[in-house]
Amino acid sequence: MPKRSIEVCFSPELFRFYQNPNSHVVVVDILRATSAICAAFANGAKSVIPVSSLEEAKVLKDKGFMLAAERDGVTISFADFGNSPYNFTPERVNGKEVAYSTTNGTQAIAQASTGLSVIIGSFLNLSAVARWIIDQPTGNVLILCAGWKGRFCTEDSLCAGAIAEILLNNEQFETNCDSTRASIDLWNVAKHDVMSYLEKVAQRHRLKRLGLDDVLKYCFTPDSTQVIPFLKKGKLVVE
Amino acid sequence: MPKRSIEVCFSPELFRFYQNPNSHVVVVDILRATSAICAAFANGAKSVIPVSSLEEAKVLKDKGFMLAAERDGVTISFADFGNSPYNFTPERVNGKEVAYSTTNGTQAIAQASTGLSVIIGSFLNLSAVARWIIDQPTGNVLILCAGWKGRFCTEDSLCAGAIAEILLNNEQFETNCDSTRASIDLWNVAKHDVMSYLEKVAQRHRLKRLGLDDVLKYCFTPDSTQVIPFLKKGKLVVE
Repeated sequence: MPKRSIEVCFSPELFRFYQNPNSHVVVVDILRATSAICAAFANGAKSVIPVSSLEEAKVLKDKGFMLAAERDGVTISFADFGNSPYNFTPERVNGKEVAYSTTNGTQAIAQASTGLSVIIGSFLNLSAVARWIIDQPTGNVLILCAGWKGRFCTEDSLCAGAIAEILLNNEQFETNCDSTRASIDLWNVAKHDVMSYLEKVAQRHRLKRLGLDDVLKYCFTPDSTQVIPFLKKGKLVVE
Repeated sequence: MPKRSIEVCFSPELFRFYQNPNSHVVVVDILRATSAICAAFANGAKSVIPVSSLEEAKVLKDKGFMLAAERDGVTISFADFGNSPYNFTPERVNGKEVAYSTTNGTQAIAQASTGLSVIIGSFLNLSAVARWIIDQPTGNVLILCAGWKGRFCTEDSLCAGAIAEILLNNEQFETNCDSTRASIDLWNVAKHDVMSYLEKVAQRHRLKRLGLDDVLKYCFTPDSTQVIPFLKKGKLVVE
């Protein structure tokens, strides 16, 4: 039986150069979109509706949906709240459908929709994501890093490396992908003291300037939840 | 005086997301295009004319230029030779103008032409490139990795990391660029035993399958030449 391959794509702008119709696509945008989505489901959200444009977001808000939306870290004026995972409290989201639009993450989710399946990954659900992939009978794996406005970002590659490392310890999987190997190496440089390593990361400083860096430790703490958000008919849901 | 910034771009497909009109652009495609270009000048070539398409390459060949051309590592039928650095011998290239077309590298050079200046980097001319950049009175630095068909490739990021590391040891420079930091980290993982590290690199195995991996040690040996190939009016030349 041929092994299942693992790839990592460092930017949505490169997505077309990677396999995807035969791959389960894991979208990671850990500071902060995919961490926030995991938090929303951990706190009981019924669904999260990713919307790329603020125009669409406004339409859903006007229809009565709760709206979480930001650009460059700043909450959009007509949104109910921004994209700190701390915003998605049980009081706000339990049983609710939440429309969601962010700088990078929601566009990456939209692009990923050509995959065999699309799931949301972060450190919050790290082991659950790896377990879900391992448990699928077939399908390659493509970890799509949302990056920052088209560019590579370190924090997403660290999460990609952490996921890929777990998978490669399972004999079903192999990789011949340089960005996968590089992600694992970067994760191994960082993992012994992630908080110190983040001092080198641009997004850490962007969030600090905006007073939004209270989430770092939360976003890098593995396995606080077992949720696996899936994209199904344009909505993220859990089974 | 503000510091000069360093950026690394992992794929020509991401080039538009990085600065460039104010940046000296260093193109790296070390297995094998930019290593071969450095070898050509070290062996006395008068100029190297990078051409993106094989149609243009054929036109130049018909005009009487010597032509080096490959796709996916394989020499093109109407070319005089392919892109192993070993092909660019003094007997063949001394005093000559050589037209040159490769899978990734020559396209990257074409794209880089919007930069403040465009130079060709590899391990062969590592210290010379860093010294040239340091000696310029102004200008940021953008190291453009040619990658592989749009994708990230490890070997170019290692060379980018090696260049960036030298520059950051000079007080003129700073970086706030995640791919620069990541390249330096990868270079530091690899540099103590580059030949072993290359076992993880896809291009190393592509070259091996084609019997073209005799150049690895040569391409990773620093400072065998002091040449700095520049792009000037569509031709690469040395001063």
